[in-house]
Amino acid sequence: MEKREQLYEGKAKRIYRTSLDNQYWVEYKDDATAFNGEKKATITGKGELNNRITAIFFTMLKQRGIDNHFIRLLSPTEQLVRQVAIIPLEVVVRNIAAGSLAKRLGMKEGTVLPQPVVEFYYKDDALGDPLVNPSHIKVMGIASEEDLAALERLGLMVNDVLQPYLRERGILLVDFKLEFGRTPEGEILLADEISPDTCRFWDAETGEKLDKDRFRRDLGKVEEAYQEMLKRLGGEAHV
Amino acid sequence: MEKREQLYEGKAKRIYRTSLDNQYWVEYKDDATAFNGEKKATITGKGELNNRITAIFFTMLKQRGIDNHFIRLLSPTEQLVRQVAIIPLEVVVRNIAAGSLAKRLGMKEGTVLPQPVVEFYYKDDALGDPLVNPSHIKVMGIASEEDLAALERLGLMVNDVLQPYLRERGILLVDFKLEFGRTPEGEILLADEISPDTCRFWDAETGEKLDKDRFRRDLGKVEEAYQEMLKRLGGEAHV
Repeated sequence: MEKREQLYEGKAKRIYRTSLDNQYWVEYKDDATAFNGEKKATITGKGELNNRITAIFFTMLKQRGIDNHFIRLLSPTEQLVRQVAIIPLEVVVRNIAAGSLAKRLGMKEGTVLPQPVVEFYYKDDALGDPLVNPSHIKVMGIASEEDLAALERLGLMVNDVLQPYLRERGILLVDFKLEFGRTPEGEILLADEISPDTCRFWDAETGEKLDKDRFRRDLGKVEEAYQEMLKRLGGEAHV
Repeated sequence: MEKREQLYEGKAKRIYRTSLDNQYWVEYKDDATAFNGEKKATITGKGELNNRITAIFFTMLKQRGIDNHFIRLLSPTEQLVRQVAIIPLEVVVRNIAAGSLAKRLGMKEGTVLPQPVVEFYYKDDALGDPLVNPSHIKVMGIASEEDLAALERLGLMVNDVLQPYLRERGILLVDFKLEFGRTPEGEILLADEISPDTCRFWDAETGEKLDKDRFRRDLGKVEEAYQEMLKRLGGEAHV
């Protein structure tokens, strides 16, 4: 299996074709962006940390019956994944009010939600990734009603696995964002990444933020927080 | 039946108690506001026009089986309605992309939607009436899943009646906002108003806007547009 031409460069990753039809080569970058790309920086080691953290989460999820695109690590900053066409929706699941939810509903950050909230955002940088409802998604022709129900169900299943798993490691899973793709056979498959870039992780004892909010809110020690998360998950980075 | 103390003053209406337990007295004002109250003006005659237009729509809807809070006109600017506790959700139904939907989804204003879009906005001035999804509404405890399904169904039923009714009068129903209340018996009832303040009406031939967008976008001839709408509906104002 060989790396071929670059297919796509996102804010945090590059995707390459491989010599195999149904597999992509993902390279995690050290670049960090926030607020729809308005804030930018390079965080040394972030690529490796997110690559390793994602590998741990995706391996664990597969073991617990939630299939996903991850195949194996290729290097500290690279992984091999199954080829999917990404559905242009961010599926966000929330257990505790923070960020845009706290703002939207006027809730104090930290309010424990009586049940998980699921949101769909339309992945479109030019539009600022707007919140969309099932009715919007239907008229845009992005996903059928059944697909949407599957995405919501999968989001809640991932939450049901991740929440206790992280709690045992002293972490509160505040919220997280998932992306899904369709395989060439039409199967909906969990894809993208699960990392401090795409989740809010709070230390269960101190409430310390161990995620991208450290970068968004200029709290400092960004790399250290990502390192701490990898450590809690039993991984080791070589940066 | 007598008018008693004022219960509430909104941007466009005042609500008074009456000597009857289950009836409210509504007074339509000439005040116009837009962009969450940032833009303000007085439009002479608007109170009477919206009072009369709402009465026509609500009478017609009741005749076609969609019950609502309207009882009868009391004066050119006043009407008697059934007492309800307003559910703090704006139910928006859209047939053609315009306003915030065009912006949210990056659609050209005027794009005919393949099917009606239904949206819920949380009525909260301080939060700017944010778009909310069923999951938000559930955690806020505003409405049950069944209530929400009823609101959506009623919104689409109103659309199914209003759209052809207006088309016969040379008007395209672009979109509209409804509010619902609960009667003391717990029944969900269509309430508030249906007027050029709460709908987008376009002349079917010329595309001319006959609604509040004339005020929002400084297009002039606001009162004339509302007068034209009343005329198309077969009503007459004495302003």
